[in-house]
Amino acid sequence: LTESFAKDVNRFNKVPAIKEGDLKLAESVAIFHCLGRREIIPSRWYPKDIKSLARIDEYLEWQHGNLLNEAGMLFYMQWVIPFQTGVKPKAEDIKNQIAALNRNLSDLEKIWLKKSDFLVGNEVTFADLMAVSIIEQVVGLNLFELDARKYPNVNKLMIDVRGYFGEPYEKAHKVVNDYGVKFKSMFDHGEA
Amino acid sequence: LTESFAKDVNRFNKVPAIKEGDLKLAESVAIFHCLGRREIIPSRWYPKDIKSLARIDEYLEWQHGNLLNEAGMLFYMQWVIPFQTGVKPKAEDIKNQIAALNRNLSDLEKIWLKKSDFLVGNEVTFADLMAVSIIEQVVGLNLFELDARKYPNVNKLMIDVRGYFGEPYEKAHKVVNDYGVKFKSMFDHGEA
Repeated sequence: LTESFAKDVNRFNKVPAIKEGDLKLAESVAIFHCLGRREIIPSRWYPKDIKSLARIDEYLEWQHGNLLNEAGMLFYMQWVIPFQTGVKPKAEDIKNQIAALNRNLSDLEKIWLKKSDFLVGNEVTFADLMAVSIIEQVVGLNLFELDARKYPNVNKLMIDVRGYFGEPYEKAHKVVNDYGVKFKSMFDHGEA
Repeated sequence: LTESFAKDVNRFNKVPAIKEGDLKLAESVAIFHCLGRREIIPSRWYPKDIKSLARIDEYLEWQHGNLLNEAGMLFYMQWVIPFQTGVKPKAEDIKNQIAALNRNLSDLEKIWLKKSDFLVGNEVTFADLMAVSIIEQVVGLNLFELDARKYPNVNKLMIDVRGYFGEPYEKAHKVVNDYGVKFKSMFDHGEA
């Protein structure tokens, strides 16, 4: 990104970021809260009751130490490091990382989705979109296979969220899937 | 923690967690938001205006990918892994991890604290407490030395937050400092 973007929009020079009046704001979760408080996004996405909001926050925090972290690490190990160094990851490291990601999916399946179809109650919220799009990325990039029989609740969530957001969702993830196909052979280790 | 704690308070069986009526909530940031919305914590800690809240959220997200992550990794490398495996970390890995933490401190110094004494405006907020207590932990555990000349803004923030919270703050961090002294020799590598 450009120097003027850093100066005028986000001082960390990253996306996503918004600029509204004199407020320049980065970080998707912070943006989500801000738009929710301003009632710019639908209330089903940003519920008004404190309990649902608390549960969304709890998920967004949990995600950092778990799903987002482990998925990000897998991407880093299998794509970023090999791309930067030309050295393939060790099969065992990848195996351990996939096991860590499976532990997160197991928590999603058995704890988060134990009592309801969505992460917070019976309506789709921002939390679901975040969760599903993380999984979508590791699957789309051919880093991970989602076992629908092992994780039926997670699989249903993926289908429901895809269905709910429809074309814009597919369009956004097509980029990821195209990269997955394009670079699969480049980074194919045939061992992990 | 006990099975009944997992059942009755936090299904992830971790602290911090709160139980209020039928709401069982984990994750410090989620708890902070919840208590803030209920007006249980002072409004200076949980400002009412959307801009200040947005900036607090932005910091809390930034922290995950930066200060909290790198400090946690340093702790993990220098304490958890050696404790579990008996194998000392490589001096170079520790050096790189300390460099990563210094990059975060540099961002705190030059970006976050560029225009004001605190992370969000001119009053102490939850964001400051989070930031300072992370630094306090790596310093207290003898994993990291804060160079006050290199980071005068961060150093001032540490002093201000300590002064603001006084005795409860000192008491909470005494545990960390005691561990730091107690185990320093156990894990002292003399090389990092």
